[in-house]
Amino acid sequence: MKFVTYTSNTGPRLGVVDGDAVIDLNQAQSQVPADITAALLAGVDLVAAGKAALASAAPRLGRATLTLAPVVPRPGKIICLGLNYYDHAKEGGREKPDYPWFFMRTATSLIGAGAPALRPRVSEKLDYEAELAVVIGKAGRHIPQDRALAHVFGYSCFNDISVRDYQKRTPQWTIGKNFDGTGAFGPELVTADALPAGGAGLAIQCRLNGQVMQSANTDSMIWGVAETIALLTECLTLEPGDVIVMGTPAGVGFARTPPVWMRAGDRVEVEIDGVGLLANTIQDEVGQDEVG
Amino acid sequence: MKFVTYTSNTGPRLGVVDGDAVIDLNQAQSQVPADITAALLAGVDLVAAGKAALASAAPRLGRATLTLAPVVPRPGKIICLGLNYYDHAKEGGREKPDYPWFFMRTATSLIGAGAPALRPRVSEKLDYEAELAVVIGKAGRHIPQDRALAHVFGYSCFNDISVRDYQKRTPQWTIGKNFDGTGAFGPELVTADALPAGGAGLAIQCRLNGQVMQSANTDSMIWGVAETIALLTECLTLEPGDVIVMGTPAGVGFARTPPVWMRAGDRVEVEIDGVGLLANTIQDEVGQDEVG
Repeated sequence: MKFVTYTSNTGPRLGVVDGDAVIDLNQAQSQVPADITAALLAGVDLVAAGKAALASAAPRLGRATLTLAPVVPRPGKIICLGLNYYDHAKEGGREKPDYPWFFMRTATSLIGAGAPALRPRVSEKLDYEAELAVVIGKAGRHIPQDRALAHVFGYSCFNDISVRDYQKRTPQWTIGKNFDGTGAFGPELVTADALPAGGAGLAIQCRLNGQVMQSANTDSMIWGVAETIALLTECLTLEPGDVIVMGTPAGVGFARTPPVWMRAGDRVEVEIDGVGLLANTIQDEVGQDEVG
Repeated sequence: MKFVTYTSNTGPRLGVVDGDAVIDLNQAQSQVPADITAALLAGVDLVAAGKAALASAAPRLGRATLTLAPVVPRPGKIICLGLNYYDHAKEGGREKPDYPWFFMRTATSLIGAGAPALRPRVSEKLDYEAELAVVIGKAGRHIPQDRALAHVFGYSCFNDISVRDYQKRTPQWTIGKNFDGTGAFGPELVTADALPAGGAGLAIQCRLNGQVMQSANTDSMIWGVAETIALLTECLTLEPGDVIVMGTPAGVGFARTPPVWMRAGDRVEVEIDGVGLLANTIQDEVGQDEVG
């Protein structure tokens, strides 16, 4: 089953995908909150609600008419792994890590599929990173690896767009990973039952203006999804709606000679087999002196 | 004016402080959400609501009877500065930074004043860090330094308790700063009008079992509050309820000879002049195989 979140005048709405159409889940099943994080936190069985909606005569919205939001618009937390593909670690001049390089993103950086990705005013070093995103469905702490996948609700595509000069201004990458309009997340959230366990064995690509820039397989991840959940929950509680972004393979722009930076008008695509195709076009940030 | 958040059967409640008592703001003024982030995001004038509540006959709760939650229980984001006091950078063997070492915490790490701070099962290297916390009241992007303080709602104390071996497992500090039960935040949120501009010139201390371990002044911060807001909003949008944690002065446990690690039963206090006294007692994490 596939879910999307789309924008509306009253805020983001959770929908279940029915071919080329989308059903507003909250409209079809009033007990389901319109925000997916709220729905997951409340313990709503979204697959059952989705099935009931699909079997009903609830109104269908033409998917092409909708503006997609990030599939989880306001996750409780977004934990990213750096250097989780050895070939990407090597292209950046790093050794094979012996523990994931965890950092966090925040919701203000997120955009939906089809939304403009922003090249900020203060930098020209905008780079792509194709990644598999994991959405947690069930809370847990100290989750053993062999039960970890039962805590996964589903998977989506993520473009962990990075402002490289800010990322490397200090050893903490956080600021270069949190510019507004740089965390592309979608288009669909595919439930775990529709994919191989742990999202393993999936081809993953990044294309820039149609040219393949990254091409790998999720099997090459150093830490798989189950192991990552076990490692993280040694330290902290994962909650429903939390997102883990699993790291990127080789081929990023900064490691090329000459480096490739994304510019206004570029179309960047992340595609993962069975998970989806996430496309965004780069736009220059519009300059304003103060917003808010 | 001072606000607290305290626990209840129905979740955290926002209160305004009246001497030794607290008024439930949502009960006194039904238009005020019980969650401070929701109230700030909705643009509620909390100072006006607080004044009205204080002038009313609304029920007073004995403060000593309340269990405090983090003053902002679910901030949209928590951005922390590393190495923002030069003497602390030096004790860790670092140069004076030329840009803040930003990293993030997430809400699952937060605890209120008086709550047990947790020494995790997986580490014995638990360290304290006294810090000034800033709570944003008004959204903004590209905020110039000279208008930045108008975006601050208030200030509180923060103990950025760090699991040092996890913090230093990789160059990304994030995981060592996000263990459950390690981000002590409170007890009160003091509105900006009650303090010097930018929380400047305030004595800040950390005491462990009564012994002064850190003693400095917020004037020694390399980046002040206004400059930090200007730097951050070059990159991202600050939203109402977001929290900035301003870094710690010298005297932390890991830099001592021999190192000082906090253990079960230790009482750790962060005190900032005019902002408050935040006390927590260390407890060993209770071992369970899987929670959730």
